[in-house]
Amino acid sequence: MIQVKAFAAYDAETPLKPFEFERKEVGANQVQIEILYSGVCHSDIHTAKGDWGPAIYPLVPGHEIVGRIIKTGDDVKNFKVGELAGVGCFVDSCRQCQSCLEGEEQYCDEGMTGTYNSYERGTKIPTYGGYSTTITVDEKYTLHVSDKLPLSGVAPLLCAGITTYSPLRHLKVGKGHKVAVLGLGGLGHMAVKFAASFGAEVTMLSGSPSKEADAKKLGAHHFALTSNPEVMASLVNSFDVILNTVSAKHDYNTYLNLLKKNGTMIVVGVPPAGEPLQAFTLIGKRRSIMGSLIGGIAETQEMLDYCAEHNIVSEVEVINMDYINKAYERMEKSDVKYRFVIDMASLK
Amino acid sequence: MIQVKAFAAYDAETPLKPFEFERKEVGANQVQIEILYSGVCHSDIHTAKGDWGPAIYPLVPGHEIVGRIIKTGDDVKNFKVGELAGVGCFVDSCRQCQSCLEGEEQYCDEGMTGTYNSYERGTKIPTYGGYSTTITVDEKYTLHVSDKLPLSGVAPLLCAGITTYSPLRHLKVGKGHKVAVLGLGGLGHMAVKFAASFGAEVTMLSGSPSKEADAKKLGAHHFALTSNPEVMASLVNSFDVILNTVSAKHDYNTYLNLLKKNGTMIVVGVPPAGEPLQAFTLIGKRRSIMGSLIGGIAETQEMLDYCAEHNIVSEVEVINMDYINKAYERMEKSDVKYRFVIDMASLK
Repeated sequence: MIQVKAFAAYDAETPLKPFEFERKEVGANQVQIEILYSGVCHSDIHTAKGDWGPAIYPLVPGHEIVGRIIKTGDDVKNFKVGELAGVGCFVDSCRQCQSCLEGEEQYCDEGMTGTYNSYERGTKIPTYGGYSTTITVDEKYTLHVSDKLPLSGVAPLLCAGITTYSPLRHLKVGKGHKVAVLGLGGLGHMAVKFAASFGAEVTMLSGSPSKEADAKKLGAHHFALTSNPEVMASLVNSFDVILNTVSAKHDYNTYLNLLKKNGTMIVVGVPPAGEPLQAFTLIGKRRSIMGSLIGGIAETQEMLDYCAEHNIVSEVEVINMDYINKAYERMEKSDVKYRFVIDMASLK
Repeated sequence: MIQVKAFAAYDAETPLKPFEFERKEVGANQVQIEILYSGVCHSDIHTAKGDWGPAIYPLVPGHEIVGRIIKTGDDVKNFKVGELAGVGCFVDSCRQCQSCLEGEEQYCDEGMTGTYNSYERGTKIPTYGGYSTTITVDEKYTLHVSDKLPLSGVAPLLCAGITTYSPLRHLKVGKGHKVAVLGLGGLGHMAVKFAASFGAEVTMLSGSPSKEADAKKLGAHHFALTSNPEVMASLVNSFDVILNTVSAKHDYNTYLNLLKKNGTMIVVGVPPAGEPLQAFTLIGKRRSIMGSLIGGIAETQEMLDYCAEHNIVSEVEVINMDYINKAYERMEKSDVKYRFVIDMASLK
């Protein structure tokens, strides 16, 4: 067995604390990765606090993992010891349903096996995430990571990156499209970078005037203050796509009205309760709302390769492992630009 | 001026009563139609009662109009006296915006000119609808009607027909698709006919077991009782498209869950208040909700031609003009299979 050091939530209320556990030795198709950086996602907090139902405690969060391969199983074909590698939000799936066969494992009919807070398929062995020194993963669920980019900025691509890349690609966003991004956080700042990189004309929609300069630095062409009724009125029927990253309560209809005919609002955030939807807001311009969930392994690899080629990384604040509880507090106040990433060397 | 007999709502509260008014003589580009049948749409009731804001009284409803051309303006090219013709939900639009240029006048940036409860463009002359003996319309907003079909069953195609035809075509529904129709009324029964005619496998979703036989007679391959939790559980992730025609309060999420990955729920009904939408219901399978509004003139003509070719008409109960208030009462209890159509000869 492999001895692993980690930080875990022991219950829904108390701060994360050190935790030690064992991972099985690498199987024939697995790689073992020494984790170098682990991004901190809002999902980590929600899961740790039991917001989405009872978690499997002790819970080791972390699904934005990059590191170096230190061991490979006998049948591993595509990875070598010494290479960089990444792990995202899931480490397994049924491999047989239509979505799995199509390479969209995130929509697996049986449910993907989460990188944490799941059980290894067919067992009661919990999966433990990236707030740990090492992880073993089937090579099919492992990503290649380029050495061209700063690794700490690559980690959040595994969740924040693919969550925004995938729906923009699905809708074939590119030159000639007007795209608005709602919410400038971990997801929103990647959405701005990708949409701009794909050639779209990007508008940041935000209620904070202070975000204008940052949004433009990230690549937004325009900034619109959502608290200004005149600005909002001027933007009615303007956008082909709105990428809505907000998970706090907000009014969908206000933003749907900004879509052109045939426009689509992509939702990737989950507000705590259902948001009232006025049917006529959709009907009057044949508008749509579409949800989207991360991306499959193949598309995540495509995204990582795209980022390496186009020099795209997440903006991060690197922290030590023992700063995690403070980081959670700051994230709950949106006090981070734009993603905390744990330097896992701090755990050794 | 042309003297016209009609039935009108004089205010939001009292029953419709006889009304006489004048229409202008046909302009150079207009045709005059002797109205033979006029369908009765739920919108007529909502508008008459001021449910959607104050109406222009006296209000002559009716936007499912078929009749015979009795006069043509000097510059009319595509219609001749004696031919059958139809008029739908609008009689004009700006003709210059992108939607108008694309032949989707229903999404006109300036707003289409409704067949009733609008003003003729650039004037304060109210438009009066089909509960009247004759109407004058620009030939560009007039439809050709085949003489192959029973005319009373053609009238509702102008609204109920195109409202369901258009989004099914927009989503390219056909062979290999599983389509569910929610709500078996004026719109729903046309949705079943069109979806089945396009080659889709059609399921009627209804809370009334009594509707099964009728749904199957209309062409539905399956019937699912929405009040049966086992039936609903068995249908999760089943449909490519749900055409939701319900305008009463209902839970969108319940039905969204029945969509497959990438599935779309089309909403054409407008519930009285916003319906809470759970973002994760969309996100978990990349599902969408899309609104759709009637159809443009070109597509309405395509639909009428398709119906003539495939022998598709609405199921109707033909009434006399003076039955209209009773018809409204019955419609509010869903007591009609599936559309009242006024025989306008009864008004002469």
